[in-house]
Amino acid sequence: MQALKERIQKDGIVKPGHILKVDSFLNHQMDVELMEQIGQEFYRRFQHQPITKVLTIEASGIAVAYPVARAFGVPMVYAKKTNSVNMDGELYIAEVESYTKKENNRVIVSKKYLSSEDRVLIVDDFLANGCALQGLISIVESAEATVAGLGIVIEKGFQEGGHRMRNLGYHLESLAIIDSMDAETGVITFRETEE
Amino acid sequence: MQALKERIQKDGIVKPGHILKVDSFLNHQMDVELMEQIGQEFYRRFQHQPITKVLTIEASGIAVAYPVARAFGVPMVYAKKTNSVNMDGELYIAEVESYTKKENNRVIVSKKYLSSEDRVLIVDDFLANGCALQGLISIVESAEATVAGLGIVIEKGFQEGGHRMRNLGYHLESLAIIDSMDAETGVITFRETEE
Repeated sequence: MQALKERIQKDGIVKPGHILKVDSFLNHQMDVELMEQIGQEFYRRFQHQPITKVLTIEASGIAVAYPVARAFGVPMVYAKKTNSVNMDGELYIAEVESYTKKENNRVIVSKKYLSSEDRVLIVDDFLANGCALQGLISIVESAEATVAGLGIVIEKGFQEGGHRMRNLGYHLESLAIIDSMDAETGVITFRETEE
Repeated sequence: MQALKERIQKDGIVKPGHILKVDSFLNHQMDVELMEQIGQEFYRRFQHQPITKVLTIEASGIAVAYPVARAFGVPMVYAKKTNSVNMDGELYIAEVESYTKKENNRVIVSKKYLSSEDRVLIVDDFLANGCALQGLISIVESAEATVAGLGIVIEKGFQEGGHRMRNLGYHLESLAIIDSMDAETGVITFRETEE
């Protein structure tokens, strides 16, 4: 997605430790106009699929899932990272390691909101080692629902998550795949992909 | 907002401890069509204000802020509840007590995304004791920005937050104000308000 890549080049900041900061437009402050374009692009890429639900994980995934769910005219569900006293009833649970926060999270979705009838499009802002995505996939599979596709805004192509997901046979669409980035020079190199 | 009140009556579940579960449409699974109407309603109520930014708090506030920010054509910012290793630079910080989670959170916003020029519409899904809102207001004031208004989807009118905010002179618009709710009978009574 050209507009996204240009925005990453313009406003993304590469930090040591394979960290790309895009918090000026994607995951702290959000450029809603760009998010709309992202939603439309995911719709274009998955519109041949009979999606019934869009699933993501709090917090930054929510603003990605929103325009996608609206484009498909289906509800969105976000997995929660901790068990609040406000969550009761039966839950699907997965353990997920956070790359940036260096901690394990319990990720939960109420059983009420995923069923075996659902065809689920899973979306998130980043894909690095794939732990969050793996957790969401395992929740969809616990529900005996179908993973219709995986939609990622920025894939760190030099980490193993994307490769693993494609090898597992999932239909993964990443709107920008970064093949390398250098914290010293700030240079970001994108993979050439068909759009 | 009539459609919202009807939805709360239909799908909201009252639990002991003044807890209203609306996770089938507002803060776990989200009815994006309803969120769109909520965004339009906030726009209608605040459109006379020159809003430059919509501020909320993760996670459930994000899907409320999104359609509001889109309606105003401005960026949204969400305050984060913990300090991730991915957050650097200077931060506005407030301490906030969570009503449902019974814990204190440090709430942070990067100084890059709020300035003294900003006229900020603060939105959230719930207002109960007002701690989260107080934290967001204190962050806006730390930035010497202007609180242009407070937009709440569901106000628990039997708790002190809304009363306190109105007494402090803020322009608070709550789309549904609950005067009482009963966990045994499930009866929810809304305050009569001008719309």
